Amino acid sequence: MRAMPNYRLLIEYEGTRYSGWQEQRNARTVAGELKAAAGRASGAPVALGGAGRTDAGVHALGQVAHLRTREAVDPLRFRRDVNDLLPPDIHVAALVPAADGFHARHDAVLRSYVYQVAVRRTVFARKYAWWVKRALDVKRMQEAVPCLAGRHDFARLAEQGPDDRGTLVELVSADVVLDGGLILVRLAASHFLWKMVRRIVGVLVRVGAGEWPVDTLAALLEGRVPRQGTVAEATAPPTGLFLERVLYPGDPPLGAPVAPAPVAAEPRGSSRRGIR
Amino acid sequence: MRAMPNYRLLIEYEGTRYSGWQEQRNARTVAGELKAAAGRASGAPVALGGAGRTDAGVHALGQVAHLRTREAVDPLRFRRDVNDLLPPDIHVAALVPAADGFHARHDAVLRSYVYQVAVRRTVFARKYAWWVKRALDVKRMQEAVPCLAGRHDFARLAEQGPDDRGTLVELVSADVVLDGGLILVRLAASHFLWKMVRRIVGVLVRVGAGEWPVDTLAALLEGRVPRQGTVAEATAPPTGLFLERVLYPGDPPLGAPVAPAPVAAEPRGSSRRGIR
Repeated sequence: MRAMPNYRLLIEYEGTRYSGWQEQRNARTVAGELKAAAGRASGAPVALGGAGRTDAGVHALGQVAHLRTREAVDPLRFRRDVNDLLPPDIHVAALVPAADGFHARHDAVLRSYVYQVAVRRTVFARKYAWWVKRALDVKRMQEAVPCLAGRHDFARLAEQGPDDRGTLVELVSADVVLDGGLILVRLAASHFLWKMVRRIVGVLVRVGAGEWPVDTLAALLEGRVPRQGTVAEATAPPTGLFLERVLYPGDPPLGAPVAPAPVAAEPRGSSRRGIR
Repeated sequence: MRAMPNYRLLIEYEGTRYSGWQEQRNARTVAGELKAAAGRASGAPVALGGAGRTDAGVHALGQVAHLRTREAVDPLRFRRDVNDLLPPDIHVAALVPAADGFHARHDAVLRSYVYQVAVRRTVFARKYAWWVKRALDVKRMQEAVPCLAGRHDFARLAEQGPDDRGTLVELVSADVVLDGGLILVRLAASHFLWKMVRRIVGVLVRVGAGEWPVDTLAALLEGRVPRQGTVAEATAPPTGLFLERVLYPGDPPLGAPVAPAPVAAEPRGSSRRGIR
């Protein structure tokens, strides 16, 4: 029997309305919507698997999935048809034929997430950022992250999941930058544990607010501070989290020049000024 | 009788859910929401007037208004109270005491609007941009705008409004820039006529698509082309339009360094890459 044709998809979505990526029986999910649209567009059931199981409310700029159709499709036309059937908060940005064995989750070698913390109330970023009302010291947050780089047991910075591949994670980069009214926390790693980014951001916010010492993340990684409970309480909400990029063998590395540039909801370079 | 205390407000809003800025009897408007919140926060009716009467669905990064309360208020506390009462798509970014005679509409000397045209389907900018599916030549659009600068009769590029102050407008600057997947059209002028920005953008899109000649705007300004009807048909939808800034005598000029920087809904610097 001939293998079903396999495609690689790049997907962008706003997670607000969805119970996460992964298909569920009685909930609206991104994979559920995508599978339904692809099935209708191809006229037969399809198989679909994503690189990252984003939680309810989490967004994606660059989720990757493999999609198997019963018959081969014309990629350009099929992508257009699928997008026409999808709700406006999900968009297939690219769709190309993939090697028969390509598996979006197993083959991924690097994932990158970015989390947006808003330091002031904003109308346009409200669905895409966690607004923290306490004053945050970005410098403290920046001093707290370098310890994350490298291979560590992140069990104390994650929730125990049903299908964990172990809690040892190779974290490739961790950055905190202030961009206007937003603090961006970017993390790239071999894989991420359940709620790991949101736990790290939650701790960073406590550190930035001066409530926890700068070395809290380091202490947790070394098992020195057994405050699992309080770390769970600090977990950042899903609204500020984006799955940004998933890399596969042969892909250009993170940081390589890219196009097209991301699209902002609010015009850039606005010369707005407070009045005083 | 003592004059009512007067305040100057800087307001940010997403216009999607509103029938525009201006209060109406049986419709939800931004000024209506703001007046109700300020009235509740101050415990007495207030008087409110905005600088620009943005249409239904139009957004604002920097609407300015004057607000008169019965008794003097503590600006910081009052702003916080008003924001707590406002829906999340309206935000008072600043509130300061103003001169007794300050009138947001009459005293404004310059208004700046920005319009976002999306050249590809996007999830995150969909409420803040007009997605044009035809291929657009940005260079043609850039060649078409310099003619707008200066003092012209813009009657052919506007809708006749109920309270027009005349159709002669001093246009200070007109720019078209490509920023990632967005074409930004920025216009600054003494004042704007009804639908003027959306008409200009509509013509620019026709020019960019190669359907109309590059000199269409110039021809319309000179009264050479009597195609009022087709210009009206070309009117760009409100979804991509932002009232960006309003200037008053003594304010720093447009282009002066500003803080805080605008906030994007989607994280900047994302190293997303299409797959191919």
